[in-house]
This record gives sequence, C-alpha cells and structure tokens, in this order.
Amino acid sequence: MSNPSLLILPGDGIGPEVMAEVVKIIDWYGAKRGMAFDVSEDLVGGAAYDKHGTPLHDDTMAKAQEVDAVLLGAVGGPKYDNLDFSVKPERGLLRLRKEMDLFANLRPAQCFDALADFSSLKRDVVAGLDIMIVRELTSGIYFGEPRGIFTEGNERVGINTQRYTESEIDRVARAAFELARKRGNRVCSMEKANVMESGVLWREVVQKVHDADYPDVELSHMYADAGAMQLCRWPKQFDVIVTDNLFGDLLSDAAAMLTGSLGMLPSASLGLPMANGRPKALYEPVHGSAPDIAGQGKANPIACILSFAMALRYSFDQGAEATRLEKAVEQVLADGLRTADLLGEDGVTPVSTTEMGDAIVAAL
Amino acid sequence: MSNPSLLILPGDGIGPEVMAEVVKIIDWYGAKRGMAFDVSEDLVGGAAYDKHGTPLHDDTMAKAQEVDAVLLGAVGGPKYDNLDFSVKPERGLLRLRKEMDLFANLRPAQCFDALADFSSLKRDVVAGLDIMIVRELTSGIYFGEPRGIFTEGNERVGINTQRYTESEIDRVARAAFELARKRGNRVCSMEKANVMESGVLWREVVQKVHDADYPDVELSHMYADAGAMQLCRWPKQFDVIVTDNLFGDLLSDAAAMLTGSLGMLPSASLGLPMANGRPKALYEPVHGSAPDIAGQGKANPIACILSFAMALRYSFDQGAEATRLEKAVEQVLADGLRTADLLGEDGVTPVSTTEMGDAIVAAL
Ligand SMILES: CC(C)[C@H](C(=O)O)[C@@H](O)C(=O)O
Ligand SMILES: CC(C)[C@H](C(=O)O)[C@@H](O)C(=O)O
Repeated sequence: MSNPSLLILPGDGIGPEVMAEVVKIIDWYGAKRGMAFDVSEDLVGGAAYDKHGTPLHDDTMAKAQEVDAVLLGAVGGPKYDNLDFSVKPERGLLRLRKEMDLFANLRPAQCFDALADFSSLKRDVVAGLDIMIVRELTSGIYFGEPRGIFTEGNERVGINTQRYTESEIDRVARAAFELARKRGNRVCSMEKANVMESGVLWREVVQKVHDADYPDVELSHMYADAGAMQLCRWPKQFDVIVTDNLFGDLLSDAAAMLTGSLGMLPSASLGLPMANGRPKALYEPVHGSAPDIAGQGKANPIACILSFAMALRYSFDQGAEATRLEKAVEQVLADGLRTADLLGEDGVTPVSTTEMGDAIVAAL
Repeated sequence: MSNPSLLILPGDGIGPEVMAEVVKIIDWYGAKRGMAFDVSEDLVGGAAYDKHGTPLHDDTMAKAQEVDAVLLGAVGGPKYDNLDFSVKPERGLLRLRKEMDLFANLRPAQCFDALADFSSLKRDVVAGLDIMIVRELTSGIYFGEPRGIFTEGNERVGINTQRYTESEIDRVARAAFELARKRGNRVCSMEKANVMESGVLWREVVQKVHDADYPDVELSHMYADAGAMQLCRWPKQFDVIVTDNLFGDLLSDAAAMLTGSLGMLPSASLGLPMANGRPKALYEPVHGSAPDIAGQGKANPIACILSFAMALRYSFDQGAEATRLEKAVEQVLADGLRTADLLGEDGVTPVSTTEMGDAIVAAL
C-alpha cells in the first residue's frame, strides 16, 4: 500500500515559516513512528498570484482533489489589497473549500491552561474552556448568486446572496451532532431566524435532523447576536456550536480571541468520504498571514502544528498519535517556552519560530 | 407653539415595566423644567399581534411618522416563537425602522465605572471604555429582495439578499464621520470586502466620502471577523465604528456585553430631517424583552431611561438636559443602588425596577 499523501500549501506572510515547522513534525513521524507521508508542495494565495497571475492554479486544484489531505498556512497581505476581487489571495482558499466541497469547518476554541492569563477575559471565564464551532463552509453568502457590483439607474449597488438548501443544512447539522456525541453531547445552533428566512429554514432543518436521528443530543437554538453576546459573557455554557458560513466566520474568530490563544488554534475543513474512505480534508491555522511579523522568526507555529494533529485524527484515524502531538505542545508550554505573541509573563523563555518547532519535536 | 410629541411603544416582556420608569422621567421634565411633551402610547410586537393580529397596526405606523420621536421598549418572546415569519413581533420593529427610514443606528458601548467589575473582561480592558457603533439600519440583508423559502427540484432553499446602494452607504458614512468629529475623531469601517462584493463597494464609498468631505477624520478599514476579534481583545482601540445592518447587529451586541452594562445601554435610530428640522427618530434600549424576568420588578430601567436622554440630545437639542439625566444615573450607581442584573458585589443596595426609577427622579 502506498503512503498517505499530503499537499502542503504554505501560502503568504507567516505561512511558509510556520509550515516549515510542521514539516519537521511530519518528518519525525516518518522517521520515528514508521508513518511516512508522500508530501508535495505548491503555491496558494498571493504567492500563486505572483507566479501564475491567479491565486490558485488549476494544476494545484487538481492535486488538492487527489491527495489524502491538504495542509494550508495562510493567505493574503497588504501587497494584494488593490487586486481585482476575482484574483485576491482569498479566492484561492475559497476555491479550494468550494471545489473540494469542504462543508464542515471544525474550529476548536480551547484555552490552554498555561496561557489563560493571556486572554482579555477574566481567568475564571476562560480557564479550561473547550468548545467546538462547526461552521458551514461551502455555501451561504460566501458563494450565493447573484453577486457583484451592478449599476442601477445612476448609481451602483453591491449585491451578495445568502442561500441554503435543506441538504446543505442537513449535512453540516449531522457533522455537529456526530462531534457532540464524542464530546459534551450538546449542540447550540445559531442563526437569525427572527430576521432572515434562510435562518428559519436553518433552524427547522437542524431541529428535524435532531429529532429524527440524534434525539439523545441536547439541542438548543440561539439568535446569532445573542450568541455573540453569550460567547463574550460565559463561553463555557457551550459545547458544540453549529452555524452558517458568515456567522461562523465572526463567531469563531471572536471565540478564538477569547481564549487568548489565537496563535495556538487549529482548524479542520472536512468534506465527503473519498473512495479510500477518508474525507476530503484541508487543515489550516485559525490565525491569518500576519504580514507585519512575517520573516522575523516571531510567528507561533503551534496553530499550524495542531492543525496537523487534527489531520492525524480526522484524516488518518490516528487519534492516539494526535494526542501524543497535542501533549508534546502542552509540554513545551508547561516548560515555559513562548514565541513572541505569548511573551509578557515572568519566568518564561522566549523562543523563535524554529526553536519552538524543534522543542516540540524534542518533546515528541 | 405646541409641545414636542412622543409616541411610546412599550412592547413585550420587560418593555412595559422599564417604560413606566421613563414616563416618570418625562413627567419630571414637564413639571420641573417646563419641558412638557405630548405623549401618546400604543402597541408594538407581540402585544400588537395579540390585539390586532399584526405586530404593528397601520394606525400606529402612521402615528410614528407624525411624532417628533418614538420611544420603544422591547419586542418578542417565546409565546410568539411559532408565529408565521410575517407576523413575528420583530416585524413590527423592522417595519418602523424601514418606513421611518431610520438609517443610522447609534449604539454607544460604554463601561460605567461603578460596573466595570461586571464585565467578563479584565477591568483594565474595559474601564473607561466609550465607543460608538453606527449601524446601518434600513438596508442590507435585513430587507433585500429576493427573500423567502422556495422549492427547487425536490428540496427547499432559504434565500436572503444583501444589497447596498452607493447612496445608502454614503449617508450612513456621513453620520459616522459627523459623530466622530464630536468625539475622538476616528472612524473604523467594518465589512468583508475580501469575500463580499457588497463589502468592496462599502469600503470604496466610505473612503470616497472621507476623502471628499472628512479628510480631517482618521479613517481605517477592518474585516468584520477581525473586528469581532479586536473588540474582544482591546476595545479601547476604537472610537466610532461604522458597519452594515447584519455585522452591526452582532458586533454591537458583543460590544455591549463586553462593557458588563447590558441593562444600561441605550440606542438611537435616526433618519432624515422632518419639516421642523428634527430627524425622524426612534429610541430603544439595546437589551431585549427578557421574558424570563418580565413582571417581577427585576428589570433594569436604566437603558430605557438613557435612551430618553439620547432623545433629549438628538431630537430636542437639549444636550445639557441629557447630560443632567446621565449624571443622575451615574449618581444612583455611585450611591450603590443596583437592580437584580447588577447584584453580586458587596455593599450595594438591591432595588426594584420602580425603586430605581424613583431614585433617578430624586437624583434629578
Ligand atoms: C481569509 C478569509 C477568506 C477567510 C474567511 O472569511 O472565511 C478567513 O477569515 C477564515 O475565517 O478562514
Ligand atoms: C429584535 C431584532 C429584530 C433586532 C435586530 O436583529 O436588529 C435586535 O436584535 C436589534 O439588534 O435591535
């Protein structure tokens, strides 16, 4: 049997630096645990635009469809701010999500004990926090048609369309319920059913899936504005949150920031099973490309490394190895090692991006 | 000259209780400051539905168009959760906003010093916080067509449309810049221009208005997800935030919660000037109808009272009287009076809704 395949897309800004540390981890698994991967690498985002004039080349797209998992760094940067909408770095990422049909975006918002004081929230509000946001990722206002800037009478109008079909809601709801069963067994679904008909359908379908196939899971519904409030007030009330593409974008970023561990948080974007039974999958850190600190050895590689841990768990059924990697990360934090984003406390040891990667390999 | 006119719409849940305290304040201004108002009262939301089968009767709508200012309590409640979308309590409020063309929703997020410890955020992150969110209120995905639940093939699809014209963006941007000039002179505009064309147009128009007519105001742009993060991380970086209807809904609720003063925060929704020079205007607390505590004397009337202070300032050009009322509120807080939502500290005096209203009248 051939090795499982990985496509690495470092992207822009700090993407390449943090991904270089993931490669060390991958190499370690090959050398020490007999888990060799076939790794290829390619361009995405601004880096792809610079070379090909498009943020994702068709060949790269084709490769992404063939591999067992894609690992992505980050895309975007001020250099590309004035590009036409159709070739912005973000379009490369959005094309991957859409064409791979990665409908379930799993974003854990976890507060690492060693870092609880980094949060802008009080320690007792966030310590031990562990919630999972399941964001629909291939539909909604990100992709709905019609869209664009049109002329009407003597002025322009900007239009985007929120669209959700029953089956799109159904499948992401199932993903959330399945996850909840392996965790705290509670799902909170968020929309604006009081204002948007797409939210009315969302609520109805989530409830139907629940009643038919997951009656054992505790389900609640919340308006997304109230959800934003409650995340800020007492985030520990949540276990799994399921929500649409746009609400998920805002709510998961807010939740990530609450933990104080933004440079620490991974994500998995999962699609349908392929012929080999593995889901289509892309793994990426929640943080962005942070162009202001790129190339300075300041970036925290942990979010990207933990994204690889998610790959071990969700793509390769190596839950125990994922846990091993997560424990190694906890170990180096407990040892006081901190990249530049996490400095400020007494008695910690500042380390660079590569030193952090090396330390995690050593802890493995 | 006739007295200025007010239409009071207490609405549902705690709406009537908190509005009863505002009426005491209005009466005080009539008796003690020679500022008599012609006050009429009517139904909105579930209360209107119960009586008329519609959340806003046409006669009420007509009255709202005629008065100098509308004061609204809150709408909605579980009793109405299963009503058809078209007659939900919220539709009454949305109709008022739309037909009165109240495009600029001003939501101050202020942290009251006496209450800083109530925030889930650390004291130094929120103490002294004073930001103003200007939310576009009459367009965007709340009102765009097409909308509804349709059948396509063998399933249903929920559709809503985000739509912004240049002139809609232009006028709310101006409102934000004008406000900024009277405050910290900084505006941050939030959208998702990296994903949505309506956001691209939003950013472009805000920049154009700035460059043409408000070059003295400092303008920045931020993606709304990053905005949600930054609000949680270090909200004091902002002065005025201007954003669209849906982002404004989530971001202003999150910002309100950060302050720890949710039961304290007012809002003003302003439209175009009427023949008498006053803007069309509706004032309401940021909090909702809180049906769980309705009728128990637990509700905090301060948000609704401070909404009347905003009416004094923005509709009746009585800035000094608005400040007097705000100072009276600060006074009773400094004296340790607290409604049920603000209990928990030592040495404070628990009071009911009516006792709080009476104390504020006494402090005036
Ligand atoms: C980069 C951008 C297109 C993306 C999004 O809006 O989905 C990002 O914010 C995210 O959350 O992954
Ligand atoms: C009650 C509801 C329709 C309303 C909204 O979504 O605008 C509320 O959440 C608000 O923010 O005023």
